[in-house]
Amino acid sequence: MKELQLSDAYAVALGAGILGTGGGGNTYLGRIWLETEFRARNVCCRVIEADEVDDSAVVCAIGTMGAPTVGIEKIPRGDELENTVRVLESHIGSSFEAIIIGEIGGANALKPLICALQMDLPVVDGDGMGRAFPELQMDSFAIGGLDLSPLALGDCHRNQVVLHSVSGPVQAERYARNLTIEMGGSTALAMPMMTGHELKRTLIRKTLSLAKALGEAVLGAREVGKDPVEKIIDLTQGRVLFRGKITDVERRTTRGFSRGTMKLAAFGDPEDHLEIHFQNENLIAYRNGRAVCTVPDLITLVEVENGEPIGTEMLRYGLRVAVIGMPAPVELKTPEALAVVGPEAFGYKNVPFQPLPGNLL
Amino acid sequence: MKELQLSDAYAVALGAGILGTGGGGNTYLGRIWLETEFRARNVCCRVIEADEVDDSAVVCAIGTMGAPTVGIEKIPRGDELENTVRVLESHIGSSFEAIIIGEIGGANALKPLICALQMDLPVVDGDGMGRAFPELQMDSFAIGGLDLSPLALGDCHRNQVVLHSVSGPVQAERYARNLTIEMGGSTALAMPMMTGHELKRTLIRKTLSLAKALGEAVLGAREVGKDPVEKIIDLTQGRVLFRGKITDVERRTTRGFSRGTMKLAAFGDPEDHLEIHFQNENLIAYRNGRAVCTVPDLITLVEVENGEPIGTEMLRYGLRVAVIGMPAPVELKTPEALAVVGPEAFGYKNVPFQPLPGNLL
Repeated sequence: MKELQLSDAYAVALGAGILGTGGGGNTYLGRIWLETEFRARNVCCRVIEADEVDDSAVVCAIGTMGAPTVGIEKIPRGDELENTVRVLESHIGSSFEAIIIGEIGGANALKPLICALQMDLPVVDGDGMGRAFPELQMDSFAIGGLDLSPLALGDCHRNQVVLHSVSGPVQAERYARNLTIEMGGSTALAMPMMTGHELKRTLIRKTLSLAKALGEAVLGAREVGKDPVEKIIDLTQGRVLFRGKITDVERRTTRGFSRGTMKLAAFGDPEDHLEIHFQNENLIAYRNGRAVCTVPDLITLVEVENGEPIGTEMLRYGLRVAVIGMPAPVELKTPEALAVVGPEAFGYKNVPFQPLPGNLL
Repeated sequence: MKELQLSDAYAVALGAGILGTGGGGNTYLGRIWLETEFRARNVCCRVIEADEVDDSAVVCAIGTMGAPTVGIEKIPRGDELENTVRVLESHIGSSFEAIIIGEIGGANALKPLICALQMDLPVVDGDGMGRAFPELQMDSFAIGGLDLSPLALGDCHRNQVVLHSVSGPVQAERYARNLTIEMGGSTALAMPMMTGHELKRTLIRKTLSLAKALGEAVLGAREVGKDPVEKIIDLTQGRVLFRGKITDVERRTTRGFSRGTMKLAAFGDPEDHLEIHFQNENLIAYRNGRAVCTVPDLITLVEVENGEPIGTEMLRYGLRVAVIGMPAPVELKTPEALAVVGPEAFGYKNVPFQPLPGNLL
């Protein structure tokens, strides 16, 4: 892939929704923002491989921090992504040469494309998660030992903060989360900046291509009346964990996250049920009380009819869904990564990570 | 006053404690830190008048943010004040030419002297409060319309944050307070930076001289066996609101502040009592249910025997005290200032500000 254009936006958004495992931000809103930028500029978004970045070049990942439930209510100004990157550039006294996708899940796959268009910079095919995760220390850059500081965040009122130095990724998460809460629950985030050399060492590659391929497969299946769920499974080494109806959603926006639980009953057997816990993203699925899929593997709900992914901000009673489990990228399954993104890191002390077979990429 | 030296530290600390109205940080700890810096460097601290600062020079106020109850437990590294100033200098790309005292109350009168010694810069005779207040928007710089950003704060672990731009002083307070809580309840703060021209317009002048004079008067009275309380009253146009014994202290460290209530019973008449509410600083005194002194006027407890001021972090049952009310500096009694530092700004909706006669300076 050398570029993305307006006509790709829907597919990338769809694929990013699937990889978002419920989080990463609403892809419908992200998609129309991205399409607006494409139309306003009438250019393509250049996509490059990590290996095309000079080792000494400085690049920066971009995203939005906050609860998806806030993201669908708080209207962006439109320039907060670029403004936040500019504050970081000004703080360090140099310019970035490419934009990195912090997380490929949800609208956070699209915000870097928007920012790349605004700043006329290329975007690198890959990201720091291969999915979405709720906290800053959970990306492959932090897991790979990169310093998350200096980083910048900002809101639509031009409140802009630079975390100049932090003693660790968890501190970065806590400071940025508290600032995000004070800024209304959603902020633009420029982080981490890194050299090309560091990028090549820590990036999870080709995930933008995967998102696009996933979206195209779903759209293609829809067109010819095939089952989009099968296409998703083919491309991700995934499996259908459950098919059924959402019977209950308990969701609250608290301490900067959308947290909660949903319950589902199987089609044709209301005694067969699934319960999923989420913190922005779906974390763990229990079938009839037994954990059947956990982080870092991906748990995504899609509508059974059309394969449309459902973010945790859009959950509601009665939705008919397929719950798809997908194996995590291999980078998230090392002991170092599992310490940060495994079930125990989310408070599930007695749930060992039992990986689905295969790897996402 | 042209300079301060080691032998002045005790007097300045004493006077700052009196002007601290219970807050601003523990002056015993601040004083021994300042004395250590004086001894280590064997130099004086240059003191200049605001008018000696060039209109175009850039200067910066210094202080510590947090709850006094935390400040007496969290040990400083020693270099966090200078490091925080250096981060701000590096962010703006230029150096400061003088150090300003953010608040003359408590240890916050002494931290700028420490920093001035460390950075070999002069300190200006004056401050932004003429006392201590708990929140950032409550200084004469913010009240005078200066932008509090960019500002920097940092902790002893070299966590360092720059608030690059904030939409108003209350936002600066909220962001910095949340960061301070996350950093353990006490941080070094470099804020606001301003030009010499802005300094001259907004500074409350001569308060460092006042602190020193107050301390010298108390020490002098002690030496000759006179009543130090009378000396304090003479120098501040103050009055004794109450003499009695602390009978109860209810104090909690919450949301970054030391908040609480103390009760006192008059010597010789236990039915005559005073109740004082505090948020780091003493805010309001009720005598037998009637408000007799409120912010922005100063309410300071001193030990009856020796005039030693008592911070809200040191309150305890049984202390025998004189409660002194002192009129606020005139700068704090304008309508603009009272909107920020009057009783209503602290939540006392039905308590009009009834100023004590006179002005502090």
